[in-house]
Amino acid sequence: MQQPTSPVPVGILGATGTVGQRFITLLSTHPWFTIHALGASPRSVGKAYKDAVKWKQTTPIPHIVEGIVVKTCEAKEFQDCKIVFSGLDSDVAGEIEEEFRAANLAVFSNSKNYRKDPNVPLIVPLVNPSHFSMIPQQQALFSPPLTSGFIVTNANCSTTGYVIPLHALEKAFGPLEAALVTTMQAISGAGYPGVASLDIMDNVVPYISGEEEKIEWETLKILGGVAESDSTEAHAIGGVLKSFDMHSQHPLRVSASCNRVPVIDGHTECVSVRFHRRPPPSPQQVREALAAFTPTAQTSGAPSCPRHAIVVHEEPDRPQPRLDRYFQDGAGVSVGRIRQCQVLDIKFVVLANNVSIGAATSSIINAELAVLKGVVRV
Amino acid sequence: MQQPTSPVPVGILGATGTVGQRFITLLSTHPWFTIHALGASPRSVGKAYKDAVKWKQTTPIPHIVEGIVVKTCEAKEFQDCKIVFSGLDSDVAGEIEEEFRAANLAVFSNSKNYRKDPNVPLIVPLVNPSHFSMIPQQQALFSPPLTSGFIVTNANCSTTGYVIPLHALEKAFGPLEAALVTTMQAISGAGYPGVASLDIMDNVVPYISGEEEKIEWETLKILGGVAESDSTEAHAIGGVLKSFDMHSQHPLRVSASCNRVPVIDGHTECVSVRFHRRPPPSPQQVREALAAFTPTAQTSGAPSCPRHAIVVHEEPDRPQPRLDRYFQDGAGVSVGRIRQCQVLDIKFVVLANNVSIGAATSSIINAELAVLKGVVRV
Amino acid sequence: MQQPTSPVPVGILGATGTVGQRFITLLSTHPWFTIHALGASPRSVGKAYKDAVKWKQTTPIPHIVEGIVVKTCEAKEFQDCKIVFSGLDSDVAGEIEEEFRAANLAVFSNSKNYRKDPNVPLIVPLVNPSHFSMIPQQQALFSPPLTSGFIVTNANCSTTGYVIPLHALEKAFGPLEAALVTTMQAISGAGYPGVASLDIMDNVVPYISGEEEKIEWETLKILGGVAESDSTEAHAIGGVLKSFDMHSQHPLRVSASCNRVPVIDGHTECVSVRFHRRPPPSPQQVREALAAFTPTAQTSGAPSCPRHAIVVHEEPDRPQPRLDRYFQDGAGVSVGRIRQCQVLDIKFVVLANNVSIGAATSSIINAELAVLKGVVRV
Amino acid sequence: MQQPTSPVPVGILGATGTVGQRFITLLSTHPWFTIHALGASPRSVGKAYKDAVKWKQTTPIPHIVEGIVVKTCEAKEFQDCKIVFSGLDSDVAGEIEEEFRAANLAVFSNSKNYRKDPNVPLIVPLVNPSHFSMIPQQQALFSPPLTSGFIVTNANCSTTGYVIPLHALEKAFGPLEAALVTTMQAISGAGYPGVASLDIMDNVVPYISGEEEKIEWETLKILGGVAESDSTEAHAIGGVLKSFDMHSQHPLRVSASCNRVPVIDGHTECVSVRFHRRPPPSPQQVREALAAFTPTAQTSGAPSCPRHAIVVHEEPDRPQPRLDRYFQDGAGVSVGRIRQCQVLDIKFVVLANNVSIGAATSSIINAELAVLKGVVRV
Repeated sequence: MQQPTSPVPVGILGATGTVGQRFITLLSTHPWFTIHALGASPRSVGKAYKDAVKWKQTTPIPHIVEGIVVKTCEAKEFQDCKIVFSGLDSDVAGEIEEEFRAANLAVFSNSKNYRKDPNVPLIVPLVNPSHFSMIPQQQALFSPPLTSGFIVTNANCSTTGYVIPLHALEKAFGPLEAALVTTMQAISGAGYPGVASLDIMDNVVPYISGEEEKIEWETLKILGGVAESDSTEAHAIGGVLKSFDMHSQHPLRVSASCNRVPVIDGHTECVSVRFHRRPPPSPQQVREALAAFTPTAQTSGAPSCPRHAIVVHEEPDRPQPRLDRYFQDGAGVSVGRIRQCQVLDIKFVVLANNVSIGAATSSIINAELAVLKGVVRV
Repeated sequence: MQQPTSPVPVGILGATGTVGQRFITLLSTHPWFTIHALGASPRSVGKAYKDAVKWKQTTPIPHIVEGIVVKTCEAKEFQDCKIVFSGLDSDVAGEIEEEFRAANLAVFSNSKNYRKDPNVPLIVPLVNPSHFSMIPQQQALFSPPLTSGFIVTNANCSTTGYVIPLHALEKAFGPLEAALVTTMQAISGAGYPGVASLDIMDNVVPYISGEEEKIEWETLKILGGVAESDSTEAHAIGGVLKSFDMHSQHPLRVSASCNRVPVIDGHTECVSVRFHRRPPPSPQQVREALAAFTPTAQTSGAPSCPRHAIVVHEEPDRPQPRLDRYFQDGAGVSVGRIRQCQVLDIKFVVLANNVSIGAATSSIINAELAVLKGVVRV
Repeated sequence: MQQPTSPVPVGILGATGTVGQRFITLLSTHPWFTIHALGASPRSVGKAYKDAVKWKQTTPIPHIVEGIVVKTCEAKEFQDCKIVFSGLDSDVAGEIEEEFRAANLAVFSNSKNYRKDPNVPLIVPLVNPSHFSMIPQQQALFSPPLTSGFIVTNANCSTTGYVIPLHALEKAFGPLEAALVTTMQAISGAGYPGVASLDIMDNVVPYISGEEEKIEWETLKILGGVAESDSTEAHAIGGVLKSFDMHSQHPLRVSASCNRVPVIDGHTECVSVRFHRRPPPSPQQVREALAAFTPTAQTSGAPSCPRHAIVVHEEPDRPQPRLDRYFQDGAGVSVGRIRQCQVLDIKFVVLANNVSIGAATSSIINAELAVLKGVVRV
Repeated sequence: MQQPTSPVPVGILGATGTVGQRFITLLSTHPWFTIHALGASPRSVGKAYKDAVKWKQTTPIPHIVEGIVVKTCEAKEFQDCKIVFSGLDSDVAGEIEEEFRAANLAVFSNSKNYRKDPNVPLIVPLVNPSHFSMIPQQQALFSPPLTSGFIVTNANCSTTGYVIPLHALEKAFGPLEAALVTTMQAISGAGYPGVASLDIMDNVVPYISGEEEKIEWETLKILGGVAESDSTEAHAIGGVLKSFDMHSQHPLRVSASCNRVPVIDGHTECVSVRFHRRPPPSPQQVREALAAFTPTAQTSGAPSCPRHAIVVHEEPDRPQPRLDRYFQDGAGVSVGRIRQCQVLDIKFVVLANNVSIGAATSSIINAELAVLKGVVRV
């Protein structure tokens, strides 16, 4: 584990979009990374960033990026970057991120395109940084093998929030058998312009396209391990073959119901879980385990990692998005209302700031961890 | 079953409150009932209704009640009423409703005070009007036995919405084993002034005091049957002793998580259920059973009963409170998104208008059923 | 003035849009008009209406239109219609309405395209139906002159609301000298998808593109009269030349500040006015004059005309959009808080339902008036 | 002008209320002031602050105050404080603040009780700190004269926002003749619980009790000067008599229309002004004058004074409360849409964060200025 000794130049793809604006806000004061290049769609290319963007953050555009001239999203324009963050829309992210990886650039993507790729780690930094172990295999698949290029994705915003306490529970009490989650998701999760005001004011929309499938699938990849097999196929690439085991050692059933609610930022999720272990832990044991949870990302010294991965609330009516989403700059999650579930074992409420830990913040901590682990050499 | 041949005079307790205003709006055009007396707290007594009330409905005060002089909530003032509807706050409802019952008045209450009373039916009119069979026993407990006085309550607004499809499912597929419900409840459910705007705008409050317990308990009373025992105690009152069996024949576990969301009217609820029967019905079978459900209240000719007890939506993103809460004047419920649950058997979304079927409308249909069944003689 | 003796077939252009949906809702129960043809953009053509539309009203699609096959917006498809209502977007309304007029169809348009045309009346039905007198001149400009084709537009939603009390004041107290209006406009005024939820939740947007100019200009055309001149040009078309005088007899200065607020339906406007007459009327005189105002549209028997053109509220905190927008189905306006203005003479608040009197309802009353005046022969 | 050389102990009255919570948040990191004592109502007295308060800020309770034991609001409990900030409700502020002043404590009050007192300065720190000159006369009225006790109030939140640009305009272009302001005020301006959610969601309330009168009166006191008269009465207290001239040298007519809108924080105000000077300045001159405005508070070194008293926006649709209220921690105001007014001379939009510059921040800057001017000796 070692920290960089000089500033690490980074690039941002999709820099004018909402996720891009968050990357810029967070990276403009980052202790290690300096914004070196910004990429966006053709209509922004060649303009100063401040003229290309319709800035929608509640803090002003950082002075440091105002004058940066926006580039096309081509790898040749980002050759001096050690790390590239992608906030691209999924309709273009696939090809562009592929081109960047092939050009030996380290891509940390917030897009969904490669999350299901069997060689791309889907990393929630407070949960499964161990999945970085897949990078060598991902690079070895290229010919010649990539030396520094790879793609790492972070999870869907609604998945990220609740897998953090789920992981903490598995660490403390062994594998889960079932998880049932009902989400109440903020409008900012849909990007800009995103949700029409006529659709959401004084309303709940009990459906978000593709979201439930994402949660149900991503949870298994993230909470599962990395299996190794000594197959013929494995030998062909010079060693054992690694694969994500999708929690198959201890099958986990996940059921998600997703709702959009009139909240600007912050996904609130009601979660019920059942453990394999009988008898299950008590609410009090769960409370203590969640409060005590310390992710490896924290001990490894990643600067954007929150001090408290999980804040456990004792008040009966917390967490609430409006009051709790800004705590620790939204880098941790808040859990409350831990109590017995009459149907499964334990139920609780989790709140995660979808634009922070649910998006850009996770990509950035992932990049910090990659530096600390030497996956990105700086 | 017989309809009244002349107008039935009714009274309203708590007439200036939000529930009272709803009773007035609905009863002002009722085909059978005519508003005869209005009762409210001392500071309103003696005033014309229009001067006593801070009217908050989106339709104007019905002309017919504007000049009615508000009375105290004492039974002697309501002697000419065949039926009394109570929209009283629970801190006063207990004593007042008791006094009215003792004075041989038929009380249909929206308050929670007597819901747990072992002799008071808790009736969701589209589900368990069979529980009216408890009335004779309730009356027999008085000395001398009451001839026309009794109390019937309707359920909590969040319970009402989801027990309707649950009942339809049990009717079609036999008993349920488990139900897990996560609610997203409208602010009007908390009365007026109720929820402070600073607490709910751009926010979700994942807690409503006492609400989860109400749902978990009321569901069992409503969906359960009426048992008869031939005990000594029963003989003491001259017959078999009836009691609500709390669904004990086929134990049902219920787990509720209640949230307040920034919606004005309409409770949206995400429900997962598990059946005793194996294999369970398919989503398509559930869809058909819910659409086909016809409550006895409907066939018996209660005029406020909705034409469709359950409207099944095929669109992927419905029901939504803002679009669907006014359908059938809010007297039915809307169900959508019927699909497999990975943890239990089937999951779906239900929407109920908490100020209509969830409150005053249920009391009124209960009163209509009581007339049709001869429980109230008109 | 005569009412039609048989149903009048009407068509609706832009039938799948928000204004089109309102036209359909209102016309489906209209006492004179029957929906005969629906026109929409190519992607809807050939589909049954219920399959073409994404219905967003709080009442279900009227059964009567569900199966109507949507047509292209070409005049030949609407030849059997006596009246055509246009809810087209302004980017296509210009050409299409022109083609319909040329084909001798009577077009009542909610679009802005022809509002500034010197031969097209801009009619707020409760204010200036006298401007129908311009129709013959509009028809005479064609060669051969049109026999039944013409275009009449209604005003911008924010203009409509406040010119009604302004007109009532001029009728009672003579010409105004200045009007200063600050609007708080509902999101539905921007159509669908319209305003992004991220732009308006917990926010005010103090700008609506082009809106202030529209109010400032339209007010003068609507409140002004029709002048006649005996010029050479006039003789060329065989008579006197009529023109809208833009209130030039008594110059009126209008200043508008337009804001978008998080309200679904209903524009609230704070208005201050100064009269030419000195001393100006007192608040009490203004109150009485507004309450007494009876538009000619009402006495002429237009069925959609509200019973009270202006409802004057005495409560200190009314009108409010959520409580007052539905009164009289939104066909009238509500005025309250009439009081002295320290800078001009009198100030007050006016509320108009932008999707009713501010849009489709005005077009429909205009068409009713055209029938009653014989401008449309039925 | 001199800065304190050691920490200045301060007290907060009404410490558990919303304004009190803001005082605590701001003062917990103040460079000069340290929180020494907290006062609240009897039911909080004796409890640790964290147990007494229902904390509603989006940042956690500062650790520094969590354990402070809440005291009664009596001067004897605050004798060690050099400055006392009052966030008391107006129903108790009158007596308590009076008692504190009489005990020679310097009171900076956010309450309205003494704003109209002819000897109490009503100071918007970016506008009229010159009114501190009234303090000696205020002290001289006591017998014996007070040596260090006095009361200074800040203005109503809606007044504060718009008098800052008005003052800047008068400084640049001479006296104003008329100002017409329409406000769209945030719910937090009404305190907690304040506005019921049922009253404001999807709504505008065009009335705030007493608010318009406050704006119309306070504006004159703040923008006016301090007159001196050499009367008999003056001699009685040993010198000239000072009085607030209420802008009487150049009469200014002010008309306010106040609305509550569904915005959490930030008052947006549409302002039209007329100058005495003819011709009036152009929009461009106004733009430049506002951008160049530097209040004396800024040059004098008050640490909480914003760097830009007025931020002038060039974008057509700004300022907006959600995006601009946090800039400079809400200590300045934002102005945009400067343009000609057809009725008066110039119109523009101003946004002020009502919980910052509109409340606690102003009290704190006033206290800083009092220290710098030696009015409070530290």
